[in-house]
Amino acid sequence: MALARRVAAEALGTAWLLAIVIGSGVMAERLAGGNVALALLANTLATVGGLYVLIEVFGPISGAHFNPAVSAVMAWRGALPAAALLPYVAAQLGGAVLGAWLAHAMFDMNLLQWSTKVRGGAGQWIAEAVATFGLLLVILRAPESRVAAMVAAYIGAAYWFTASTSFANPAAVVGRMVSDSFAGIAPASAPGFVVAELLGAALAAGVARWLAAPEAAMDR
Amino acid sequence: MALARRVAAEALGTAWLLAIVIGSGVMAERLAGGNVALALLANTLATVGGLYVLIEVFGPISGAHFNPAVSAVMAWRGALPAAALLPYVAAQLGGAVLGAWLAHAMFDMNLLQWSTKVRGGAGQWIAEAVATFGLLLVILRAPESRVAAMVAAYIGAAYWFTASTSFANPAAVVGRMVSDSFAGIAPASAPGFVVAELLGAALAAGVARWLAAPEAAMDR
Amino acid sequence: MALARRVAAEALGTAWLLAIVIGSGVMAERLAGGNVALALLANTLATVGGLYVLIEVFGPISGAHFNPAVSAVMAWRGALPAAALLPYVAAQLGGAVLGAWLAHAMFDMNLLQWSTKVRGGAGQWIAEAVATFGLLLVILRAPESRVAAMVAAYIGAAYWFTASTSFANPAAVVGRMVSDSFAGIAPASAPGFVVAELLGAALAAGVARWLAAPEAAMDR
Amino acid sequence: MALARRVAAEALGTAWLLAIVIGSGVMAERLAGGNVALALLANTLATVGGLYVLIEVFGPISGAHFNPAVSAVMAWRGALPAAALLPYVAAQLGGAVLGAWLAHAMFDMNLLQWSTKVRGGAGQWIAEAVATFGLLLVILRAPESRVAAMVAAYIGAAYWFTASTSFANPAAVVGRMVSDSFAGIAPASAPGFVVAELLGAALAAGVARWLAAPEAAMDR
Repeated sequence: MALARRVAAEALGTAWLLAIVIGSGVMAERLAGGNVALALLANTLATVGGLYVLIEVFGPISGAHFNPAVSAVMAWRGALPAAALLPYVAAQLGGAVLGAWLAHAMFDMNLLQWSTKVRGGAGQWIAEAVATFGLLLVILRAPESRVAAMVAAYIGAAYWFTASTSFANPAAVVGRMVSDSFAGIAPASAPGFVVAELLGAALAAGVARWLAAPEAAMDR
Repeated sequence: MALARRVAAEALGTAWLLAIVIGSGVMAERLAGGNVALALLANTLATVGGLYVLIEVFGPISGAHFNPAVSAVMAWRGALPAAALLPYVAAQLGGAVLGAWLAHAMFDMNLLQWSTKVRGGAGQWIAEAVATFGLLLVILRAPESRVAAMVAAYIGAAYWFTASTSFANPAAVVGRMVSDSFAGIAPASAPGFVVAELLGAALAAGVARWLAAPEAAMDR
Repeated sequence: MALARRVAAEALGTAWLLAIVIGSGVMAERLAGGNVALALLANTLATVGGLYVLIEVFGPISGAHFNPAVSAVMAWRGALPAAALLPYVAAQLGGAVLGAWLAHAMFDMNLLQWSTKVRGGAGQWIAEAVATFGLLLVILRAPESRVAAMVAAYIGAAYWFTASTSFANPAAVVGRMVSDSFAGIAPASAPGFVVAELLGAALAAGVARWLAAPEAAMDR
Repeated sequence: MALARRVAAEALGTAWLLAIVIGSGVMAERLAGGNVALALLANTLATVGGLYVLIEVFGPISGAHFNPAVSAVMAWRGALPAAALLPYVAAQLGGAVLGAWLAHAMFDMNLLQWSTKVRGGAGQWIAEAVATFGLLLVILRAPESRVAAMVAAYIGAAYWFTASTSFANPAAVVGRMVSDSFAGIAPASAPGFVVAELLGAALAAGVARWLAAPEAAMDR
């Protein structure tokens, strides 16, 4: 029962997050008159505000991962029971798809779609690894009272400084795969992004452990 | 006397909020040269900044609802005395209209107007329900010291991720009904929005209760 | 000596503030390609960030008024010694002019200028009174640890929701009078703005006193 | 070993900062369709969000200087051991170059480049001195719990109110020297910027000392 509630929080939060990312992308593209920088700026600000709020709202219940890469690292560190990993990831993937469909319902679009936006190449894969490395390092080093603001600010920056606009989340890849809109990603491009994200997350887990090792604690 | 002061805070705060929403919409539309994304971006940032400040300023006096849906849920939860609900709502509705007129006075527009902007359809009604569901869930789960920042950030996101630009407030509907400007809504479109908002608020009240039920508290 | 340091903080802080307001206006207008909404957006964000920082930096020394209307209300409330009022105001006015000149020096403009931008009329005067009323109410009700963030957020909103773009500060009027740039105001327009600001500030002082009177304290 | 970890934090943090500044500049320029104000706005927001996060993440390890001018002032004040100054500066300069190259890798650009963007003249040198003066004063007066937010907000303002867009950091000059992109600076323009920055930093160190001298403490 306790786990059910945590899993429900992950599903609801991830659905909400994807509705924000995809919905604001649709709105921004419709209004921006072809100016992609302006559309991405609006998409960024909506994501930053929404992510901050979602982490504050669901953090005390489930940890507010909304991201299989985050849950995997937390399980590896012992901060998430191993038995919870699979339910968490399932909830995140299912929630992501539902969030995309909710965005489509709000914007009078067909519910069921596949993105046709091809994304990839060495630069974008490096970018996804960098983006996810940064996200995990931020999460692992943030004081609990600031993690929501820090993650939101980081993702806002990463939308612009990474060439891939920073998906940094395999559940986001899945949710954006089923939306043929501004934020979408073609299914064929998904595996490359997910592999890069997992590599970046693993690297961050190692670096965070080294930075926080006992000697580091002593020299502060 | 105590209630009078709280009701005055609700009236003044709601008037101020509507002056911000409508006034910044007028300014943004006048300056944006036809780019609606840019106008909505300015309208969003002004609303976010203003909402944050108004909740901080009036929260300790009246709770800073500025919103009949919020007051209704608070009364249902016992956080607002039942006898205060009607005065609160009256103050919010009256304040909203005065705020619209104040915006008109500042921008040299006719004080008395009706909006001609038709808003509605299944997508927009779903969007209003989603927007108000989110607003209430945020309010009900926010720690008191962060509620102002969280509500402001949430509304900033919701201006973009919901197809209706997130009124999420029956008093805002009334205030924007009497302004034929960027933020306006035609009176004929108002009932659909208000019904959707109340449904979203009721759903949030239920979900928040389930999330915070005793078992949830135990598994943290 | 103690007063000298506080006065120096007011002069330095007000100079810095005007350099930010005027300098970012020049930069924004030069880069915005004629889009006034975009220029005002950049001007707004620079002002919000700068104001937040200046209040945090100088608040512990002088209170970080940077504004004769604020100093006058503080003297009336007994929070500023009467003997300090004149030195404070002189430092603010002098600092404002120096800040304008610093902006001109940075942007390779003639140091000495008069603005030719006429601003006024009933709507703008109402707007200045509303803007300054709001600023003072925010300052008088803000918890000390949040006053910087609240004032910055409020001014960011007020740049857009008031028809005058919210000078809300007689020292800012003086500094912007000597700059023929985006943020300027023609000297002939200055008295109307200053009178409106002082009326708004006085009204806020009264309302804040009523809201915080003993009975209000009891009903929380 | 303790120093090695701190130096690694400075190198990693400075690399990350430059990847953000340069990467978001590339992305912004590519998407903005020739509107420089819009590009600088996106560049600003990414820098603000990224800087906030980097200071929070690395502050507890190394102090999060990322800037030789900051490290020099800290060494002068005794807050950084003299023996650490050279390793810190070397890490910052090396990290800055690596960060530029990382941005190039993500955006499929040639790794090795020299900027051709000439920057200089009296106005820009004054601007760099002002920008760095402000940065150091903010750092030296900020309460530890707010330094990240204050530095980020300040730099966001300084991108717009200084004519040079506020490099304010000799390591940033070096990193931006090796990138022929939006944020770049031609090597021949670098010495003027660095000299101005060091003068501004030295002035701030003196002013901060005066403002915090014993008499000032007494009159609060």
